[in-house]
Amino acid sequence: MLKKMQHPFFALDKSVCKENIQKMAEKACQSDVIFRPHFKTHQSIEISQWFREEGVEKICVSSLKMAMYFASAGWSDITIGMPVNINEADQLSELAKQVNLNILVSSVEASLHLVRKMMTPVNFYIEVDAGYHRSGIDSSNKAEISRILAGTIKSKLTFKGFLSHFGNTYRAASASEILSIYSESLNQLLNLKQHFLHDYPDLIISIGDTPSCSLTEKFDGVDEIRPGNFVFYDAMQLYLKSCSFNQIAGVLIAPVLEKNESKSELLIHGGAIHLSKEFLLQKGGEKIYGLVSKYKNRRWSYPIENAYVTSISQEHGIVKMPTKEFSTIKLGDELAIIPIHACLTANLMKEYVTQSGVIQMMS
Amino acid sequence: MLKKMQHPFFALDKSVCKENIQKMAEKACQSDVIFRPHFKTHQSIEISQWFREEGVEKICVSSLKMAMYFASAGWSDITIGMPVNINEADQLSELAKQVNLNILVSSVEASLHLVRKMMTPVNFYIEVDAGYHRSGIDSSNKAEISRILAGTIKSKLTFKGFLSHFGNTYRAASASEILSIYSESLNQLLNLKQHFLHDYPDLIISIGDTPSCSLTEKFDGVDEIRPGNFVFYDAMQLYLKSCSFNQIAGVLIAPVLEKNESKSELLIHGGAIHLSKEFLLQKGGEKIYGLVSKYKNRRWSYPIENAYVTSISQEHGIVKMPTKEFSTIKLGDELAIIPIHACLTANLMKEYVTQSGVIQMMS
Repeated sequence: MLKKMQHPFFALDKSVCKENIQKMAEKACQSDVIFRPHFKTHQSIEISQWFREEGVEKICVSSLKMAMYFASAGWSDITIGMPVNINEADQLSELAKQVNLNILVSSVEASLHLVRKMMTPVNFYIEVDAGYHRSGIDSSNKAEISRILAGTIKSKLTFKGFLSHFGNTYRAASASEILSIYSESLNQLLNLKQHFLHDYPDLIISIGDTPSCSLTEKFDGVDEIRPGNFVFYDAMQLYLKSCSFNQIAGVLIAPVLEKNESKSELLIHGGAIHLSKEFLLQKGGEKIYGLVSKYKNRRWSYPIENAYVTSISQEHGIVKMPTKEFSTIKLGDELAIIPIHACLTANLMKEYVTQSGVIQMMS
Repeated sequence: MLKKMQHPFFALDKSVCKENIQKMAEKACQSDVIFRPHFKTHQSIEISQWFREEGVEKICVSSLKMAMYFASAGWSDITIGMPVNINEADQLSELAKQVNLNILVSSVEASLHLVRKMMTPVNFYIEVDAGYHRSGIDSSNKAEISRILAGTIKSKLTFKGFLSHFGNTYRAASASEILSIYSESLNQLLNLKQHFLHDYPDLIISIGDTPSCSLTEKFDGVDEIRPGNFVFYDAMQLYLKSCSFNQIAGVLIAPVLEKNESKSELLIHGGAIHLSKEFLLQKGGEKIYGLVSKYKNRRWSYPIENAYVTSISQEHGIVKMPTKEFSTIKLGDELAIIPIHACLTANLMKEYVTQSGVIQMMS
């Protein structure tokens, strides 16, 4: 007998997820770019096989721990998509014996440290800040880049190219704004490529946020894309119009614990340790922690209009919805909550419940 | 040889943690109230033993899953501190065979459902909303309470008392405001107790948020307290003045990956999947995701003045600090980040690194 599922749980629609993967893989193929998906979203060996089925051989992860996890499953070309922690040179050297390892460098100091400490050859990208202002070297700072390159000649470090995450697309107000951030940021990378190509004819450009990878039709000038979130998509991506409802592959299934008739509010078992505290702002400034759908026969329906998770604590969530819809919900009903940021929800839930069984994630 | 710790990690000061436990246990003892700590904060069997050493025998948890986890470690009097999910009657009946189980009921409908479905005797509290407005029956609604009590007579359900979480203390602007919320909310419960005591002479009042349990000297009129967060405390509690720096038992140790000289900003490996996205607001409206301390020889120092985690994404955090302090930090240094909400950080990190080894949490 199947073990009764404990609520809340992360429900994953396998076929939608596989379609998302297939679509992005085809798009990459049509543009003749390397498809190096970011596995920080799903963090699962089983889901990683669905990428293999689409011909994927190179991956990106967000930590050394995650790199070791996927290396253990046979992935042999791995980029750690965070600026390197210089104190991990020993462990990186070990890992680089097993796989083709690519790391991120974003300062002369870090590069010189690694030149001294790395015991195994490793490839490195220089992370470039093209406007997001989170990490990387400012794209105008060719002097710093030149110093890194000069300092790594004849070392264990091989320069691979320029990598950037256009995370400022998440702050865009429209699809056209996403596309202009994309092309403006890409131009900065192309400028760098042009500048350094003579000395490094094999250097590549690696980019890859889900909003611009989803909305761009053709990746002109790009050599490699690294989107991650597209594997599930979420409310944020719906809001940015970088996906449609039919592409939402994962939701949190949360039971209704209370009905507050006077306020048309529901209490659900679904809180910050399930959805995370990521929110979107409504026009009036109210926070939204998730969209709300009905869930029947293992399928979730289109989100109920004006129904939102409006407040959240550790395990509790409050859902508000119009009276008419409220009256159709019963105590104990399962609701499907479309998370604001699926990567964070997946990371919290640690396993996926599909139509055909439970899939584990890195622990 | 000790395995090299991967960053970031949750560092726990065992002696501070044990002192926090001891202090709250003594306070409960002095007021002659039952000390039923909420284990949702640490979620760890090993840490639960430190409570046993202080004579604790009764506990609170926030889910059926957590109840089963602690039952497996021999805890035999467990309150599930969430309104019951009526579809879990089977599993609750099973668990109630093994332990003295207490559940929360907050509607006639839920209680009647359980009267029909529970196969094993269980105790129940009626959850009362005394002003937090998250869950529970409004304290003025004696009619609903009476209907629940009438419907559970001669059933498997035994009424235990009124339970409330004064979560609105977290929105208070001062210690005195916390204390007035506490006494105002408690009065509502005392009023209910007075009203129903004649028919239920053994009924108890159970309360227990960390801010009011930390600031109240004497629990007059209270029968049971259920604080959880006090085991670690955090930046939120510092801000509320419900703890002092010396009571902070857990921090996130995050390495410095980049130094941005022009902005006095650091990039750390410590993001939303470590700290959560919980934030506090500075006076100017800027968000703070953590306080920042130095970390040397496995000890963290007093937080650096005006140093904050100001922005956060999945794995990255941005730290701002005054130039003078900034100049003392080196690439690769470990910083100790005092989380805004330690419960969420602990839940994300899944293990504790103490001076004498690693402690596991419920997986």
